[in-house]
Amino acid sequence: MSSARNLSTALRRVRIPRSYNPTRPLILNLPSFTSKRTFSHTSGVGAASTKEIKYTTNAYPNLNRNPSFAEITEEDVKFFKDLLGAQSAVIDGVTTDAADDIEPFNSDWMRKYRGHTTLVLKPQNVDEVSKVLKYCNERKLAVVPQGGNTGLVGGSIPVFDEIVINTGRMNKIRSFDETSGVLVADAGVILEVADQYLAEREHLFPLDLGAKGSCHIGGNVATNAGGLRLLRYGSLHGNVLGLEAVLADGTVVDSLSTMRKNNTGYDLKQLFVGSEGTIGIVTGVSILCPPRPKAVNVAYFGVENYEKLTRAYKEAKGQLSEILSAFELMDGRTQQLVHQTTGNRYPLEGEYPFYCLVETSGSNAEHDMAKLEAFLENIMGEGIVADGVLAQDETQFQSIWRWREGITEALNHLGGTYKYDVSIPLPDLYQLVEDCRERLTQMGLVGDDESKPVHSVVGYGHMGDSNLHLNVAVRQYTKEVEKAIEPWVYKWIQKRYGSISAEHGLGLAKKEFIGYTQNETMVKLMKQLKDLYDPNGIMNPYKYI
Amino acid sequence: MSSARNLSTALRRVRIPRSYNPTRPLILNLPSFTSKRTFSHTSGVGAASTKEIKYTTNAYPNLNRNPSFAEITEEDVKFFKDLLGAQSAVIDGVTTDAADDIEPFNSDWMRKYRGHTTLVLKPQNVDEVSKVLKYCNERKLAVVPQGGNTGLVGGSIPVFDEIVINTGRMNKIRSFDETSGVLVADAGVILEVADQYLAEREHLFPLDLGAKGSCHIGGNVATNAGGLRLLRYGSLHGNVLGLEAVLADGTVVDSLSTMRKNNTGYDLKQLFVGSEGTIGIVTGVSILCPPRPKAVNVAYFGVENYEKLTRAYKEAKGQLSEILSAFELMDGRTQQLVHQTTGNRYPLEGEYPFYCLVETSGSNAEHDMAKLEAFLENIMGEGIVADGVLAQDETQFQSIWRWREGITEALNHLGGTYKYDVSIPLPDLYQLVEDCRERLTQMGLVGDDESKPVHSVVGYGHMGDSNLHLNVAVRQYTKEVEKAIEPWVYKWIQKRYGSISAEHGLGLAKKEFIGYTQNETMVKLMKQLKDLYDPNGIMNPYKYI
Repeated sequence: MSSARNLSTALRRVRIPRSYNPTRPLILNLPSFTSKRTFSHTSGVGAASTKEIKYTTNAYPNLNRNPSFAEITEEDVKFFKDLLGAQSAVIDGVTTDAADDIEPFNSDWMRKYRGHTTLVLKPQNVDEVSKVLKYCNERKLAVVPQGGNTGLVGGSIPVFDEIVINTGRMNKIRSFDETSGVLVADAGVILEVADQYLAEREHLFPLDLGAKGSCHIGGNVATNAGGLRLLRYGSLHGNVLGLEAVLADGTVVDSLSTMRKNNTGYDLKQLFVGSEGTIGIVTGVSILCPPRPKAVNVAYFGVENYEKLTRAYKEAKGQLSEILSAFELMDGRTQQLVHQTTGNRYPLEGEYPFYCLVETSGSNAEHDMAKLEAFLENIMGEGIVADGVLAQDETQFQSIWRWREGITEALNHLGGTYKYDVSIPLPDLYQLVEDCRERLTQMGLVGDDESKPVHSVVGYGHMGDSNLHLNVAVRQYTKEVEKAIEPWVYKWIQKRYGSISAEHGLGLAKKEFIGYTQNETMVKLMKQLKDLYDPNGIMNPYKYI
Repeated sequence: MSSARNLSTALRRVRIPRSYNPTRPLILNLPSFTSKRTFSHTSGVGAASTKEIKYTTNAYPNLNRNPSFAEITEEDVKFFKDLLGAQSAVIDGVTTDAADDIEPFNSDWMRKYRGHTTLVLKPQNVDEVSKVLKYCNERKLAVVPQGGNTGLVGGSIPVFDEIVINTGRMNKIRSFDETSGVLVADAGVILEVADQYLAEREHLFPLDLGAKGSCHIGGNVATNAGGLRLLRYGSLHGNVLGLEAVLADGTVVDSLSTMRKNNTGYDLKQLFVGSEGTIGIVTGVSILCPPRPKAVNVAYFGVENYEKLTRAYKEAKGQLSEILSAFELMDGRTQQLVHQTTGNRYPLEGEYPFYCLVETSGSNAEHDMAKLEAFLENIMGEGIVADGVLAQDETQFQSIWRWREGITEALNHLGGTYKYDVSIPLPDLYQLVEDCRERLTQMGLVGDDESKPVHSVVGYGHMGDSNLHLNVAVRQYTKEVEKAIEPWVYKWIQKRYGSISAEHGLGLAKKEFIGYTQNETMVKLMKQLKDLYDPNGIMNPYKYI
């Protein structure tokens, strides 16, 4: 507590006055804040903590195991053991009692999904993945590709007895070119590891998200992860230059180009970006990485209403322009939750209904600070924001980011969370949170009273990408709450031409709701592709489209 | 000539001395240099100038008309006239003598390709395109989608009697959101028109290329155009947020999302980006446009060798970082050609084997100039570049860009040009030009003597994207020269894991060479997609894969 207080005092010292005076610029050579979501896949912890997780088959009683899938036999296990060799490559719950070892692969960190698999395979290279899939396809054994298992929609968790194919042992950096900035790496490289490797070479992985300490870059590509700095560095559809992947029948899609421009036929690799393991397994990635910014600054503001927040965003976009690297929205409730969980004192003295975090990343600290000053003078002077602080060193930088990054963890302390990760045109973005809160309150579901299922309805997210995280924190998951929110929330988004899944994908959670964003023709065309690449339907069944 | 001299004198006045002294920054609100390639589709000019263009069927005698395609009848023409209504929507060479009117749609600006079509259709919206394609598919009438017809690989020109479906009448801006920067527009909007519309709203189309005065944004998307500033704004795979397109059977793919993040199923629109009209016709585009830079600067340098040029690029990337918007390479010969064509005096006093053009675009003129100064001091001081000039006003800005943009036109004056638009890892990028020149010289094909078929072998391009334009300027197109270059050039690129087509696509010119960049599996998978979306093969036949 005392260190938190000290920090808070330090922050207050640099409170930005109405008549803003420039202070020294913050120079960070390696801006990398600690990851919040790190997950242990060791047996003890996982097994102990998963006891109370409901099986997905119970939560979704209408799901039936596809009878055309074979069941895993001892011969299958023997085949995989012979093929993969290393003991660590096969976790065999078929012929041995390995339930504890398997459990972490059978469930998710949100404790919402739990499968019945008895076999986990960890191939080490594309050839092994190809042989595994070829065998599974011929035998009609269903599989679930799994990276760091950090998803939010149950996409990487088996439902029945699908074999988990985990990318954890494919973890080599293959090459990096310092002139072009192109990195080629195995799919199972952890995002933070890749970024640290690049940091040593003055480059940056063009993706950053809370789960970076656990998630795999192959999983990032397979789910088209967006994260904190898409605003600045763009989407994986633009940055991924090449892919190596394996189709259901074992066909190796070798398209690991390192060229930024390559117009020779359909850009097939794009189909894997965001396909959530339903047409193949990504085994290697070639990605364009920008030079690491030499200066990074972060500021935190209190804002009186949503209209002013959108004005602040417009000003940031116009004035910070090429150095703006994040514009994050947090509502007052999320900050109260972080405060309650961490015990940290608030960065600002008063409390506000909205907060935003503005980050800049540039190549010249002095220039960036001058741009920030002009921006601060403008938004403070015009009364667009009510109060703010600017980080003065790396500790403060980390501390401010914790008020944004700590939200997920703070919500976890409350029990469960219904998470909706959606895109909505900016003018209406936060209205969804208000409307949802009002709806659930009117239905008598929200309250401080322990008997009420809903603890709070909060909103935060990547405002610069029109991406809202609507979170309904519950004391326990109940059908009553779920039915009060769904499909109401999806209809609300559909009316505004938004997307029911901005960056977290469809998985199992949103499978049945795709029609609220995609029309019938699009879904039909998608199913056609699925049938083309996976005619037996063995890849990540029961999910996606 | 006198104005050119004055300009040149002005340029010399701002020559950057070894001890560089900052001068006033250049502020351009609307950086837009005149397009070099504008094409008239009016009858007279086109018909007169196309007389000597060889029919593609003569140039490619092995191509046979697909006998499963129907021939256009009077009934077909009547159907289309009834459907499209407007007289300008159908150019009918079937029942009337409209050869002169049709000719511009039958041939390309490079005068390399010429088709035999007798019918040009210009539908005005997606419904009309859908009805046209549905009819053609049922009747097995082959079609060629055509935008501004500015391509370099014969992709938009019929070979036999394929019906041309031109997007020219679909030319409306549908919407623009000033906060998000998302533009939605018809496919037939001319790139420069779109950019001017955005300029008035302080935004920028994230694509710029020489043909901007004629090319259509739908064609840009269908060919995945790269252009001058991909280095800064990224590829269309990242910037296109949504598409509206029509498949061969008339199915409307309505995927015009304006959301930056939308992870709801396979990103099907990506298949259309770079598909060159072989699976469908793009009718509408939703695209993310950045704020228009408030300051744009351009500098031009003479460099003594290629190794120093790569060092200059590395320095530009590191020091100019987020404001670097173009790094263009021009070899000495290209600049001689521009000089000969325009009569303009060289920007620099001495002659150098290499030149580069460095452009910055940022939001603060003073900061940009300071970064440029530091960069100039460094590369001049270290002797990385030998001499340079920095534009001081918009006239000089345009003038410097003309030394890069004028290359295509200068080459056109010499006769024909074999154009190879390729990606090669940076260290080897220019070696291809040297090797090609040596090869053709040793074969006795190059010389000032009019009897030699090859006038010169030159190289230029987007160095920041590892994208080289190898151009072999010939007095006439001959099989002898073609055979001396191809497939040698493709094998050379294959050995270095480059791409045989960086940004100009495959079309007819590179169809048979795809195997030098894509392996057999990839080509097989692409053909599978083509069969899926266009089972009758009516979409842009004889080309692409």
